[in-house]
Amino acid sequence: MNKIYIISGPAGVGKSTTTKGLAKQFSQSAYIEGDLINHMVVGGYLPPWKSEESLSLVWENIADLSVNFVQAKKNVIIDYVAFPEEVEEFSRKIYAEVQNVEIIYVVLWVDRKELLRRDALRIKEHQMGVRCLELMNEFEIRVIDERFFYNTTDLQASDLEEIFMNIKENPSFKF
Amino acid sequence: MNKIYIISGPAGVGKSTTTKGLAKQFSQSAYIEGDLINHMVVGGYLPPWKSEESLSLVWENIADLSVNFVQAKKNVIIDYVAFPEEVEEFSRKIYAEVQNVEIIYVVLWVDRKELLRRDALRIKEHQMGVRCLELMNEFEIRVIDERFFYNTTDLQASDLEEIFMNIKENPSFKF
Repeated sequence: MNKIYIISGPAGVGKSTTTKGLAKQFSQSAYIEGDLINHMVVGGYLPPWKSEESLSLVWENIADLSVNFVQAKKNVIIDYVAFPEEVEEFSRKIYAEVQNVEIIYVVLWVDRKELLRRDALRIKEHQMGVRCLELMNEFEIRVIDERFFYNTTDLQASDLEEIFMNIKENPSFKF
Repeated sequence: MNKIYIISGPAGVGKSTTTKGLAKQFSQSAYIEGDLINHMVVGGYLPPWKSEESLSLVWENIADLSVNFVQAKKNVIIDYVAFPEEVEEFSRKIYAEVQNVEIIYVVLWVDRKELLRRDALRIKEHQMGVRCLELMNEFEIRVIDERFFYNTTDLQASDLEEIFMNIKENPSFKF
């Protein structure tokens, strides 16, 4: 059965590295970068955290792409800031069109100190500084079941294989 | 009425500059880069010019995104190597879901000498050299109505406004 992995978490936590690596683990896979879908809008762009309409358009696009990829027998890896309500709505869209698919939801997490350290390692233009922490707060104030959190504070780049294995095998991430 | 602009033509002809600029002309628009959609496939990737399945998956994805953008009242600008058969199939998908939309098809064109000159101006990793000419040959052997060709050999970067105007207003580009 094909799976759709939604890898969420605050900026700087390692979503991009994790999702890109995870996509390479499968003989058939597709990688959807939410930010990139979001930035397809040029004229009249409004950021999804400021506009309900933008947010729902991004998720509609991600869902339609996912359906096409699943129908082409590919596992789908989604790299985007996603909260449970969005994953819920996304699941409804998916199951309306394809049945034989499993949705996995992971919120990557690290301690605040480690988040700032990782952010500082990114290339200058991608660094967010203390804004990382604001996004972290947003994850904490939303009601998210503990089982979806994956704390990677003590894991290094060399532990990526272990991270992939856990995301693929751990049943608590099933949405 | 919203429009979908499919801007095609051989590599090096100026598709990217033209489409990105065109997208900025509208108060409501979205920009879809075909190559980027194509490269969402990671595991099991086959180039669309070698696999019917890959080609049809890319177009299905482009069509679904376009439908969503048109429904969100945006003009859509597509940057991709597209031949009339693909535009035909794409049109069918679009009109099955949205009626109030017009499809514009433009094959950007330049003389061979000018194509090689423009290719040499691109950043090293994007340069294609004589492979540009092979793609040009492919456009010439396919049966494409003359009216879709837009020869920009004598136009410069400073003529972009004129190019945008022509693409937007010239009725011969209506598919």
